[in-house]
Amino acid sequence: MIFEPDTTNPYIAAAVDLRKIFALDAIERDQAGGRPAEQIRLLKESGLLTILIPKQFGGAGEPYSTALKITREFAKVDGSLGHIYGYHFSPIQNAITGGINDQSADILRRSAAGNWFWGNTTNSFSKSLFGRRDGEWTILNGFRPFASGSHVADYLTVAWEDEKSNERNFAHIPAEREGITIAGDWDGIGQTQTGSGRVLYKDVKVHESEIVPGRANSTDPIRLLTPLQQQSVLLNVFIGTAQGALLAARDYTIHHSRPWMYSDVGRHIDDPWIKRQYGELWIKTQAATALADRALRVVDEAYARGPELTADERGKAAIAIASANVLAGKVALEVTTEIFEVMGARSAVRKQGFDRFWRNVRIHTLHNPAEYKTRNVGTWYLTGDYPEPGIFQ
Amino acid sequence: MIFEPDTTNPYIAAAVDLRKIFALDAIERDQAGGRPAEQIRLLKESGLLTILIPKQFGGAGEPYSTALKITREFAKVDGSLGHIYGYHFSPIQNAITGGINDQSADILRRSAAGNWFWGNTTNSFSKSLFGRRDGEWTILNGFRPFASGSHVADYLTVAWEDEKSNERNFAHIPAEREGITIAGDWDGIGQTQTGSGRVLYKDVKVHESEIVPGRANSTDPIRLLTPLQQQSVLLNVFIGTAQGALLAARDYTIHHSRPWMYSDVGRHIDDPWIKRQYGELWIKTQAATALADRALRVVDEAYARGPELTADERGKAAIAIASANVLAGKVALEVTTEIFEVMGARSAVRKQGFDRFWRNVRIHTLHNPAEYKTRNVGTWYLTGDYPEPGIFQ
Amino acid sequence: MIFEPDTTNPYIAAAVDLRKIFALDAIERDQAGGRPAEQIRLLKESGLLTILIPKQFGGAGEPYSTALKITREFAKVDGSLGHIYGYHFSPIQNAITGGINDQSADILRRSAAGNWFWGNTTNSFSKSLFGRRDGEWTILNGFRPFASGSHVADYLTVAWEDEKSNERNFAHIPAEREGITIAGDWDGIGQTQTGSGRVLYKDVKVHESEIVPGRANSTDPIRLLTPLQQQSVLLNVFIGTAQGALLAARDYTIHHSRPWMYSDVGRHIDDPWIKRQYGELWIKTQAATALADRALRVVDEAYARGPELTADERGKAAIAIASANVLAGKVALEVTTEIFEVMGARSAVRKQGFDRFWRNVRIHTLHNPAEYKTRNVGTWYLTGDYPEPGIFQ
Amino acid sequence: MIFEPDTTNPYIAAAVDLRKIFALDAIERDQAGGRPAEQIRLLKESGLLTILIPKQFGGAGEPYSTALKITREFAKVDGSLGHIYGYHFSPIQNAITGGINDQSADILRRSAAGNWFWGNTTNSFSKSLFGRRDGEWTILNGFRPFASGSHVADYLTVAWEDEKSNERNFAHIPAEREGITIAGDWDGIGQTQTGSGRVLYKDVKVHESEIVPGRANSTDPIRLLTPLQQQSVLLNVFIGTAQGALLAARDYTIHHSRPWMYSDVGRHIDDPWIKRQYGELWIKTQAATALADRALRVVDEAYARGPELTADERGKAAIAIASANVLAGKVALEVTTEIFEVMGARSAVRKQGFDRFWRNVRIHTLHNPAEYKTRNVGTWYLTGDYPEPGIFQ
Repeated sequence: MIFEPDTTNPYIAAAVDLRKIFALDAIERDQAGGRPAEQIRLLKESGLLTILIPKQFGGAGEPYSTALKITREFAKVDGSLGHIYGYHFSPIQNAITGGINDQSADILRRSAAGNWFWGNTTNSFSKSLFGRRDGEWTILNGFRPFASGSHVADYLTVAWEDEKSNERNFAHIPAEREGITIAGDWDGIGQTQTGSGRVLYKDVKVHESEIVPGRANSTDPIRLLTPLQQQSVLLNVFIGTAQGALLAARDYTIHHSRPWMYSDVGRHIDDPWIKRQYGELWIKTQAATALADRALRVVDEAYARGPELTADERGKAAIAIASANVLAGKVALEVTTEIFEVMGARSAVRKQGFDRFWRNVRIHTLHNPAEYKTRNVGTWYLTGDYPEPGIFQ
Repeated sequence: MIFEPDTTNPYIAAAVDLRKIFALDAIERDQAGGRPAEQIRLLKESGLLTILIPKQFGGAGEPYSTALKITREFAKVDGSLGHIYGYHFSPIQNAITGGINDQSADILRRSAAGNWFWGNTTNSFSKSLFGRRDGEWTILNGFRPFASGSHVADYLTVAWEDEKSNERNFAHIPAEREGITIAGDWDGIGQTQTGSGRVLYKDVKVHESEIVPGRANSTDPIRLLTPLQQQSVLLNVFIGTAQGALLAARDYTIHHSRPWMYSDVGRHIDDPWIKRQYGELWIKTQAATALADRALRVVDEAYARGPELTADERGKAAIAIASANVLAGKVALEVTTEIFEVMGARSAVRKQGFDRFWRNVRIHTLHNPAEYKTRNVGTWYLTGDYPEPGIFQ
Repeated sequence: MIFEPDTTNPYIAAAVDLRKIFALDAIERDQAGGRPAEQIRLLKESGLLTILIPKQFGGAGEPYSTALKITREFAKVDGSLGHIYGYHFSPIQNAITGGINDQSADILRRSAAGNWFWGNTTNSFSKSLFGRRDGEWTILNGFRPFASGSHVADYLTVAWEDEKSNERNFAHIPAEREGITIAGDWDGIGQTQTGSGRVLYKDVKVHESEIVPGRANSTDPIRLLTPLQQQSVLLNVFIGTAQGALLAARDYTIHHSRPWMYSDVGRHIDDPWIKRQYGELWIKTQAATALADRALRVVDEAYARGPELTADERGKAAIAIASANVLAGKVALEVTTEIFEVMGARSAVRKQGFDRFWRNVRIHTLHNPAEYKTRNVGTWYLTGDYPEPGIFQ
Repeated sequence: MIFEPDTTNPYIAAAVDLRKIFALDAIERDQAGGRPAEQIRLLKESGLLTILIPKQFGGAGEPYSTALKITREFAKVDGSLGHIYGYHFSPIQNAITGGINDQSADILRRSAAGNWFWGNTTNSFSKSLFGRRDGEWTILNGFRPFASGSHVADYLTVAWEDEKSNERNFAHIPAEREGITIAGDWDGIGQTQTGSGRVLYKDVKVHESEIVPGRANSTDPIRLLTPLQQQSVLLNVFIGTAQGALLAARDYTIHHSRPWMYSDVGRHIDDPWIKRQYGELWIKTQAATALADRALRVVDEAYARGPELTADERGKAAIAIASANVLAGKVALEVTTEIFEVMGARSAVRKQGFDRFWRNVRIHTLHNPAEYKTRNVGTWYLTGDYPEPGIFQ
């Protein structure tokens, strides 16, 4: 089938099955917002939460691209699940690429054994969560916004600034630790079940053994891949959403759309207009997918290099991902708005839920402006200079 | 102020005042859907419901363009009110242009005296409402979909097919007539307060004196302006929405947006990207407005010709309106999606309500495909042939 | 006829007649480049060279917009003639708006009496022409590039830097003055008969009575309109070229294009594709024309204010012209490339000359980047600040 | 280097070397038109004319994609050479895929041994060349237009209609056969050295042994690949031209462009505008290249199937190639016009030759309208139906 992934990988096959289940109530859940609790339960059952964890720690040792392909697959019907599933792997992948030590081995092993779902409370835009050292403990007070996945998480990555040194620290802690409150105040126009609201910290205790050593200031290229992980998740959410929207539109057009009154055709799909517009939609979705597929390979190749990864190789990956990201976002915006034109007026009702595709892409494309990614690509094309690694590039 | 209309016309000035009031809860009302009852009350108080009715019948005798300018004004903050206000005038204008007779004079006089708000139950796509003749009465059974404005109407225009002859008839009847039920089932992704759901008719009696004589088959050019009225309302809803979205975005950008972290500027509005994109948004909105303003003049000129209007003049008006409509729809779609890029991620939350602009335009542009209007324009450009008058052209 | 101007103005009517003559060999002349000598002769015969000169000095006292409308008219078939005709009026208009004094009155009177054609050698990008004071005389040595119209000019405006003070000066001198050589080295991909190459100055003597007093440093808003004149000429060349290309394409499509082999239509113009694309081309050309027409009015209004013109009014005019210019350039580029698609493969031969439209627009739109004009518009929209008057804005 | 092909294939490496030589006078040759005689001589020396011929017949047995990659490579600097080099292989590939028989083996062997360059006189649009049977001979009279490559060919494929049966026949004959005249009347706005004018036939004798048996009516999928060959050549000319234009622009921008006067940057490449626009240009060129690369693989896979190729597989290839072709054409048009904006006004002179990129793409994209290819893709997406094999699909 069109846009169907290679299901010879059993994890991909399992994801396709889950996608079909997620689709059943995706429209209702989009409108309700809140927590996709049952879907997380199914994810746990499926074994898909541990696939990137190396085999020696109890996982499947899949390459990063497998997680991205599954992200894309879920996003075809449910952008929220695609998003939080993809982000779930950030701490896992960072633990792997940071070089295995006792702490990271422990986290990976426990994450696999516990079948944990990870959320993050690490958004770096706001300086709103501070830590105070108290012996072996750090006491956190404040909040973090944009804490995607925290509302269904077993474990959280948390970042804070030290109230004295202003140094940024990271730790992994259980989501149920005393003093943590999930505010449940996410109000986005899309990605409504990502739980991207605030997480409140009141006198939350973090032990020094829970703090990730040395992460903040690392300049190892391999560790500097972290932002590229996140950009990769985003772009595959865009691709999946575009593909899913186009598949849903096709289904509706074939089964429900009626020919326009002045069209002189018996079936809507026989209108040259409809043929042409679907042709255009497919061609651009294919083009975006082709760049996204290249980026998948680039990501795997970069990770496969491990500590040998050079700054130049990291830069090449950054450019490939930025390019794919820009095109995926642009195409997804176009597809998710243009599908209505080929479906017709009656498709634009809430119960059909087609508007969720646009709302999901519209909000999700705002977190890292295409303008700056495009400039980075242009700068590199003109000068050979790669973007300086940073939170978004 | 930018996009501010000429308020030397007191009705326009009154509309500007109302727009500001409508804006206060436009976001909440968009999300709630249902009936803008208080807003209709304010419209009645304002005197704006009777402005097109000739002075001898108790109205203000304003040209049609005044209603369209007010439509545009309301649509800046509330597409639903723009829409139903514009459509409200359809029966009024048809009564005027059909040539004044006893029946139409009576309707106009009573409409002015009663300060009626008009709704329609005339959608022509479905054959779902049938009449059975019974002496002086016709008994209606069935329903009409897309009955915009019916949920707040005092009076309704109703169209049905005769169950024997299949002839289409129109009548004006009180909305509270026995047997009429407003289903309240409008579920559009936008234009949520237009009440565009079904109206159910069960043994509703229409007296022969209420039936509009001879309308269905008229081929007088002046009567064939009716579809152009509706297209004019649509295009001014698009223009108003584009302008309103752009004004709202500007306000947000100036007061709330933060510079992008890699921008090296102190204020977001100093980023060359933001300057350029606002420049583009303004230029295209201006271009669409310029064509829409031309169309306003064309509409007034056509009506001013009255029964002297020729088929060619009617055709010229149709082309001007189709052109303006296509561009307005296209630009409104672009503006309402692109504003998010210049406002930033935090703008895309439900409580800000910016997404209603896109949802309103997206659904409203589907009712008469741009493809066919564009073909009509192209045909005329190549051959000089005007579109054959019809429900949408 | 479509895109036909209002010929109740006899100068416009005369321009339409000339346009038809210019069209006869426009393709050959485009390919030959060089001097449109015969066309300048016809222009002199037509009386169109003096129309802006006030009546008391022997001209027709037409508003500036008349010259722009004629520019547009010529550009429909010959961008070069549109360009140099529009630029011809720069010294005339500057003489008028600078405030009439003895010198300017004399120039205007002699320009009218002599039926002069004006060229310019004032390009400000290069510092390549220097003057040395020698009593009442200034001796010029060096060259000026981009000296449009100089190859057919009777009189030249020349700008130079004083070799000591570096002060910029302007003078009006006969084109045949000793020491002036028209290099004839214009090699543009389009606008081939504008003579926009270099003019060489070797010991050219300029008398102090020929130097325009005080022009360089003026900050009077009315004098700061000069760049807006030039931008207005450009945008009307773009509009005229777009309209002319679209008219030529229509003619070819109707009379020569054959239906595509898979189209199942008898005539190419019956293909829904062709209808749609012509509809799109017409709509966008109309939109650009509408903004250009607004700009025409704005220019006349600004000039009508004379010395009363305020900086704000000047700013408003600058924004209107910048907006119209950006859209005109964009649309002209699109139209001149897209026409080939609706004409078909056999239209793309040199003897048909359709490619000159694109080449003319492509080169002419580069002299003042749309990016910066767009930023100016955006800045004004966001802050109310008008662009600081300068050579291009 | 960017856009540099994989030169581990020695034929690709040789093509890169030739490209650099072709570049030296590409601008002059574009303007002169006529015959690239020296370049054909170099091609013969290089061995690149026989690479697709199977080894047993004296060639290199390379897959079809190698020829397409070389087409792309040449088109970076010279669209004409890319075009005729790609088309040169049509008779060779058809001889291979038609199933080797004595005649085809002979042609392949002699083509390799003679190092022939092939031209075609087979354009199917015009019915202008007729054959009269006379025993073992057929006598041809008339002409063929669009005979690309015929002006430098050693051997020609010729197609004619039988004057009685109207049956279409194909033969391979020496270009110097008596009665053949190369009219030399190609007048295209681009692709000026392709020699795509007429070839005149006056009493030209073709022997029955030269006639290709059974080709006209074949419905074998493998033989129906012929139109896909041609579409593949076209799309790789587009891709090569886009890449070449973008490389040339980059070079000019870095070394010659000056910052805009209001830019406040020291180097033009530091302007955010220039960075962004180059980023956009690169991203879209990459996307088009990615689809083109997929199409290369599809072509090879289809040929590798040989007589086993099914109609469905042929259809899949047709869709992949049509998609890549549409995007390549669109992107190439955009890139070749937009490069001027980032280079600046001084780049638009004939001696720089940048306009040849647009002229080449503009004319070359007209021979098979994107509209119909796009509809074919849309039809397939909606219904699964592949386009019916035909001359252009």
